[in-house]
Amino acid sequence: MSHKAQEPGAGIHGGRLGPGGGSRAKAFTASIPFDHRLYREDLAGSRAHARMLGRVGLLTGTEVERIVQGLDAIEREFEAGTFQARLEDEDIHLNVERRLVELIGPVGGKLHMARSRNDQVALDMHLFARAAARTVAEAARGLQRALLDQAEAGRDLVLPGYTHLQHAQPVMWAQHLLAYCCMLQRDRERLGDAWRRAGRSPLGAAALAGTSLPVDSAWVATELGLEGPYANSMDAVSDRDFVLELLAAFSVLMVHVSRLAEELVLWSSREFGFIEPDDAYATGSSIMPQKKNPDVAELVRGKTGRVFGQLVALLTTLKALPLAYHSDMQEDKPALFDALDTVLGCLEALTGMVATMHPRPERMAAALEGDFSGVTDVADGLAQAGVPFRAAHAAVAHLVRTCLENGRQPQDLDPAELAAIHPLLTPALVARAEPSAVVATRRSPGGTAPERVAEQLDLVRGWVERP
Amino acid sequence: MSHKAQEPGAGIHGGRLGPGGGSRAKAFTASIPFDHRLYREDLAGSRAHARMLGRVGLLTGTEVERIVQGLDAIEREFEAGTFQARLEDEDIHLNVERRLVELIGPVGGKLHMARSRNDQVALDMHLFARAAARTVAEAARGLQRALLDQAEAGRDLVLPGYTHLQHAQPVMWAQHLLAYCCMLQRDRERLGDAWRRAGRSPLGAAALAGTSLPVDSAWVATELGLEGPYANSMDAVSDRDFVLELLAAFSVLMVHVSRLAEELVLWSSREFGFIEPDDAYATGSSIMPQKKNPDVAELVRGKTGRVFGQLVALLTTLKALPLAYHSDMQEDKPALFDALDTVLGCLEALTGMVATMHPRPERMAAALEGDFSGVTDVADGLAQAGVPFRAAHAAVAHLVRTCLENGRQPQDLDPAELAAIHPLLTPALVARAEPSAVVATRRSPGGTAPERVAEQLDLVRGWVERP
Amino acid sequence: MSHKAQEPGAGIHGGRLGPGGGSRAKAFTASIPFDHRLYREDLAGSRAHARMLGRVGLLTGTEVERIVQGLDAIEREFEAGTFQARLEDEDIHLNVERRLVELIGPVGGKLHMARSRNDQVALDMHLFARAAARTVAEAARGLQRALLDQAEAGRDLVLPGYTHLQHAQPVMWAQHLLAYCCMLQRDRERLGDAWRRAGRSPLGAAALAGTSLPVDSAWVATELGLEGPYANSMDAVSDRDFVLELLAAFSVLMVHVSRLAEELVLWSSREFGFIEPDDAYATGSSIMPQKKNPDVAELVRGKTGRVFGQLVALLTTLKALPLAYHSDMQEDKPALFDALDTVLGCLEALTGMVATMHPRPERMAAALEGDFSGVTDVADGLAQAGVPFRAAHAAVAHLVRTCLENGRQPQDLDPAELAAIHPLLTPALVARAEPSAVVATRRSPGGTAPERVAEQLDLVRGWVERP
Amino acid sequence: MSHKAQEPGAGIHGGRLGPGGGSRAKAFTASIPFDHRLYREDLAGSRAHARMLGRVGLLTGTEVERIVQGLDAIEREFEAGTFQARLEDEDIHLNVERRLVELIGPVGGKLHMARSRNDQVALDMHLFARAAARTVAEAARGLQRALLDQAEAGRDLVLPGYTHLQHAQPVMWAQHLLAYCCMLQRDRERLGDAWRRAGRSPLGAAALAGTSLPVDSAWVATELGLEGPYANSMDAVSDRDFVLELLAAFSVLMVHVSRLAEELVLWSSREFGFIEPDDAYATGSSIMPQKKNPDVAELVRGKTGRVFGQLVALLTTLKALPLAYHSDMQEDKPALFDALDTVLGCLEALTGMVATMHPRPERMAAALEGDFSGVTDVADGLAQAGVPFRAAHAAVAHLVRTCLENGRQPQDLDPAELAAIHPLLTPALVARAEPSAVVATRRSPGGTAPERVAEQLDLVRGWVERP
Repeated sequence: MSHKAQEPGAGIHGGRLGPGGGSRAKAFTASIPFDHRLYREDLAGSRAHARMLGRVGLLTGTEVERIVQGLDAIEREFEAGTFQARLEDEDIHLNVERRLVELIGPVGGKLHMARSRNDQVALDMHLFARAAARTVAEAARGLQRALLDQAEAGRDLVLPGYTHLQHAQPVMWAQHLLAYCCMLQRDRERLGDAWRRAGRSPLGAAALAGTSLPVDSAWVATELGLEGPYANSMDAVSDRDFVLELLAAFSVLMVHVSRLAEELVLWSSREFGFIEPDDAYATGSSIMPQKKNPDVAELVRGKTGRVFGQLVALLTTLKALPLAYHSDMQEDKPALFDALDTVLGCLEALTGMVATMHPRPERMAAALEGDFSGVTDVADGLAQAGVPFRAAHAAVAHLVRTCLENGRQPQDLDPAELAAIHPLLTPALVARAEPSAVVATRRSPGGTAPERVAEQLDLVRGWVERP
Repeated sequence: MSHKAQEPGAGIHGGRLGPGGGSRAKAFTASIPFDHRLYREDLAGSRAHARMLGRVGLLTGTEVERIVQGLDAIEREFEAGTFQARLEDEDIHLNVERRLVELIGPVGGKLHMARSRNDQVALDMHLFARAAARTVAEAARGLQRALLDQAEAGRDLVLPGYTHLQHAQPVMWAQHLLAYCCMLQRDRERLGDAWRRAGRSPLGAAALAGTSLPVDSAWVATELGLEGPYANSMDAVSDRDFVLELLAAFSVLMVHVSRLAEELVLWSSREFGFIEPDDAYATGSSIMPQKKNPDVAELVRGKTGRVFGQLVALLTTLKALPLAYHSDMQEDKPALFDALDTVLGCLEALTGMVATMHPRPERMAAALEGDFSGVTDVADGLAQAGVPFRAAHAAVAHLVRTCLENGRQPQDLDPAELAAIHPLLTPALVARAEPSAVVATRRSPGGTAPERVAEQLDLVRGWVERP
Repeated sequence: MSHKAQEPGAGIHGGRLGPGGGSRAKAFTASIPFDHRLYREDLAGSRAHARMLGRVGLLTGTEVERIVQGLDAIEREFEAGTFQARLEDEDIHLNVERRLVELIGPVGGKLHMARSRNDQVALDMHLFARAAARTVAEAARGLQRALLDQAEAGRDLVLPGYTHLQHAQPVMWAQHLLAYCCMLQRDRERLGDAWRRAGRSPLGAAALAGTSLPVDSAWVATELGLEGPYANSMDAVSDRDFVLELLAAFSVLMVHVSRLAEELVLWSSREFGFIEPDDAYATGSSIMPQKKNPDVAELVRGKTGRVFGQLVALLTTLKALPLAYHSDMQEDKPALFDALDTVLGCLEALTGMVATMHPRPERMAAALEGDFSGVTDVADGLAQAGVPFRAAHAAVAHLVRTCLENGRQPQDLDPAELAAIHPLLTPALVARAEPSAVVATRRSPGGTAPERVAEQLDLVRGWVERP
Repeated sequence: MSHKAQEPGAGIHGGRLGPGGGSRAKAFTASIPFDHRLYREDLAGSRAHARMLGRVGLLTGTEVERIVQGLDAIEREFEAGTFQARLEDEDIHLNVERRLVELIGPVGGKLHMARSRNDQVALDMHLFARAAARTVAEAARGLQRALLDQAEAGRDLVLPGYTHLQHAQPVMWAQHLLAYCCMLQRDRERLGDAWRRAGRSPLGAAALAGTSLPVDSAWVATELGLEGPYANSMDAVSDRDFVLELLAAFSVLMVHVSRLAEELVLWSSREFGFIEPDDAYATGSSIMPQKKNPDVAELVRGKTGRVFGQLVALLTTLKALPLAYHSDMQEDKPALFDALDTVLGCLEALTGMVATMHPRPERMAAALEGDFSGVTDVADGLAQAGVPFRAAHAAVAHLVRTCLENGRQPQDLDPAELAAIHPLLTPALVARAEPSAVVATRRSPGGTAPERVAEQLDLVRGWVERP
């Protein structure tokens, strides 16, 4: 890797633009440095467009064949990394058009009948956005699977459940991990909705008003796996709401992922210690073998801002633009590309970290020792035995204070000591505060009782395995 | 209106917090100053919860009846503006609980069995978010209707279609307005998806782990018009993705609305002049009667930022929060309330402005005079007559230059003058550049030809009228 | 507190706007519901303007006197909460103007010579922004003081210093707290710069072009404590960059404050336990006396998003507005007011929480027990004794492993055991790993050695006490 | 340009990460793909550090010399594009360290005494941020110069001044352009403040606590052109507020630049027509020579969102991070690099567009024809002649209505017609409404009168030329 090849712009180290006014402006306005990434979508759209032109008689069968072969050849060049893009051809569309004419002669120019760059680029972005939605949804499913596997492997583990980062009640480790699986399922649904809504084809809208040529927009849409043409040509070329919806879905997903990442960082700390990250997903210290920096989780958390930023960027860019196409809209591409790369990178890395992390049952158990997070159930037991609620609470508060003052646990007190606090307080009642006893009672739908967790495992397994 | 009553906080003019540390902290942490707005949702949730407790035998029929009557009485107090909220009761839940006990005695305390403020507030927010989604979708439908009415009233009007704010091709005024109807339809769909996904009930999740009492969470959900309980109790109380999704849908809607607002500002300018805002929606000048500031459109455009800001606010707030509930999440309320008020206010005001604006056909026609935006069709005509494409373009470029140099219009040239430019150039061909002729040819699906616009009017009428 | 009085808009519970189109639009466009908060600034600006008009002969001395008395009377009405604002008078300026004429008759109308609402509102915002910058800077100083007092009170305490939330090296508790004092000092400087740059007076710019009347803009500016008039009248009424700069300074400050809040939440957890929040700044549990929810810190962390949101809102609003004044700019007020209230509320509440929190030295010491965060210094000691760096590290890694395997601490090993690991390893060398020994050596400028911390305490004391 | 070389990540077209878990994680966490851009800052910092180590006796003179020569050699490799960065060496620091040892042997390892990557990367970012602030400030000065040159060249031009996009009053073209110069001057000041506040050196803070070695942090700071070391080592390595401040300054600058861009788009439209962009800065149409898409202005406007997005990204990333260093902070680099490239690209392109644009005096004059924007001055004239203000206004409103109804201009009415409207209305009074007469009277400080504009030209010339 030479550093030069990586450099996206020399920035403060020198001018990026050439000497002449025109060429400097061209370097600023050209989108080929990033929109080349749309080559597959652009070529697929062009192939479908050529075939449609053949079907309606605007191209002969031979012309269609030559154009499609030319486009195939260009795709091979892209795949091989040999396609030579030119800045003066501005964008992916003109670069492909120029190359097509180089390869197959003037007939290549006929491809652009009944089409404008305005509907062409909109089509490319629809196809790209759909693929992006699918890919991210699959990556989210991968993270669900890793969480599910950990949940199943550790289905007997209990750890403190927190509110306000304070111990609230013991919960199953599986319950905690499955909460994220549920969030990710909604993210997958949102991505599915975004995919669905990006299913209209702008082709046929031409520059903004439609075309006078007898195109078959519905056929092209179907050929490309889309559901049909836009109902209004100006809408078709002017809007990018399908990109915004995707960036918003990415952002919500990153909220979820950042919360998991935060917990992985907390759990990797010496203070919590509920997991040990695998060496492949943490940076160690040669001298302090117990210390592992959870870099992957930190970076995922940090990159959350980057995805939010791209959403803000495109919202701002589209705000208050009159109809129809404006060059401002070119900024949809860097925003989507960077957000996509970031989200995918985060999901993949976090999936690896989750899949390989080692839960530490002894630390979970130790954390529950003496945290009194189950004593509410003792009070409930007293209440069920007829003690007025307020008196039951007072008795248990007395019990807790006694333990705290003497550094003991409720289960260590003998029957006499318990009776001294309240006549109905017995070791059997106190045993209700045991974490495993507490979780066993939370049998309400979605609760943390083992049988409820088992139901959830089945549910999530279905989400993960359903094709 | 006394200014004091409006004052949300004295800010730099004096301290808002009382003297004591505790009470100052309470003033900072209490949510009742804004969450009282959830009273209907909170009371509806409590009624359903009480009835469920009765069904499963945790309350007697009499107890249920007294509780429900008490809640009804509280609702009447809220509606009448006589409910006395107390800061020391922190939030809407504790204020209602306190008032209920005041009204019906200690039995009121039984309402809070098998429930925690964590699942209670989550439920309230689900109910509120659903109502908000519906209300905004209806307001969007109202704007569609106003646009549709204008489109139908002016279905014969033609004006320049723009790209890059340059005249590109003539389009029907109706086509332009209907583009916004299509955008708003997708917004309504997004709001519908957000509504649907907010359809789970968190009740039964209690603090975070579920409850040991034999609740019927499914029954409560149905009673409240929801689809069923959450699958995971920690997810139920920890997430606010349904609010984020709604704020994102609002933001995309505001992008659309800001674009329309921008066009209304442009069109109201002396330079464009395509509309005259009604006096009720513009500020005039006593001395310059032709001058009207399109304040409503400007404010709608300006408030777009405010809605984006609330989305950013809540994304930021939720980023990297560990499970389960944290007080940070309290900030979901001001964000949603302010965004909702802003979006609704904008939609209502813009609907009024659109419904009452006066299109100015003479200015639209004048704008098309001599803009040459139809001459591409003349070149197409020459090409169809057998002239090579490049030569046809050159001829028409020559025609345009000739007109520009002499301040004439193509249709003013006589046959001889036309023939001198190109032998096949005739008045009939030149007539193709007439705006009405140009739009008539754009017959591709979604195009601006009158028959295509008629189809769109039918389509949008269906969207607007369907219940 | 009646809930109605608090309600900023009925939102989804009913219409806020009146029946008629015009009055509904007026309700949407009127700013008096929030800009009444500028009354002091508006009245101060008007008094200065009246006096200037008197100086240049546009008003007589008597006229000036009557106007100033009228303005004083209005201020008393505002202060007493009796000023009756009217929605139909739109904004604070017209409300004051109307009231002035009511109070002193037609001469009140003369106040508006040589002034437009455009320069008047811009002036009000400059004055308000300056006061806001000062007030927030003072509140930041208050937080510095609370941190400083804690640092001084606990100047002997040592706790783990973290990177990646892993123990890295022991640091002084004071060093940790003083880091925030340094951040807050830069925030105060940024606020000072924002204050300085808001020091131009727009008065005299009138609507946008200046005035033909012989105003003395420099005198007015001085009278109001500003540095002089704007150099360009269109700039004066069109820009709100001084508000953006302030919101940006608030946002950076909130980044700092959110980091402190996050640490207070962590430190209040059972796992860290380095502090115990005072009861006034935490919510307790009746049954679990050791549990305290650090609500204030959570809310401060959560409200960070709110301030970022207001910055985004105004950036978006101002983007791409042509010169000069547009109604969009009215949105600068809710953004600034809400951000100001939020920042001030957070600073005050956090100051109280910091001032009253109880550090727990025993937990800090326990956290350092066996974390091996000082062993690098043992390796350094070996290296200084001539052991090659790599070998020194290997020996210490061996020492750590030995301890981990046997659950012992380095200082528990006897000389023979140490010598078995490396011949030069002695108890004296091992003592270098003691936290207090480690911190004592960090004597580089700004380091955590006690004498360096003492220097910092002096420095920060100066910042806090300097007027 | 091969498209592969440009591709920053294959995204949805294939996996970016290698097969093994560890290497995939490494690919995710490594920063060398972007932080190589810091090579100059990193090498400069290392040279200064080496010299300092020599000064305090930690390195011999020979060692210093060899290290510096090695660093120089590495810089030459970077400049020549031959430096081979390795992903497994993670970041710029380790890549340079590895290469240094390759070049000069084990002595290269000694460079890293008394330094950690935490303070090293913080130093690099300080140096980079300062250079970025300077470079952008210079580019802003370049735009001021282009605006100034246009203002001077067109110092006689008058065009409508707008509020609410309605004609308000005539203003000088120069006045309008100079408003932007004033905004840019404040941007330069903000950049200067950001530069100044980034002037502390974190070197010596080591990982977070300082170093036990006898470093001379003050000397290093001075050697690097900085003002001195940080006062607190934890602050030094934990904060990135100087990057936030820079991104905020960039964002405010982009607000200004987007407003100018919007006006260039408006002015390039057929409807306004006040400028004609030069061919080098616009895209033409072969067939419609009068049509020019102002691409550069559109893109600048669109990229505003991108810069806001990077600010939001980093604010979000830093929110609620505990001290001290976390890997999240690595995201400061892509945010700053992209924002810098974007801002610089926008400033350069816009400078070119402004410098080469052609004002169209005839269109400006035509726009003022019959816009009645000067009639307020006629009313003022009547008032000065003793007509009560209200009556004067009524007379002028009558005059305007008369003209509008008959399609005439005020100056076309003869004395009798004028007298019929109001006895004191004369041609001389009506002449006050002439644009040149109106602007001549706006002599208040900063006003648009020619002598005031002349003063501004001098002022701005000073800003532009002062070194």
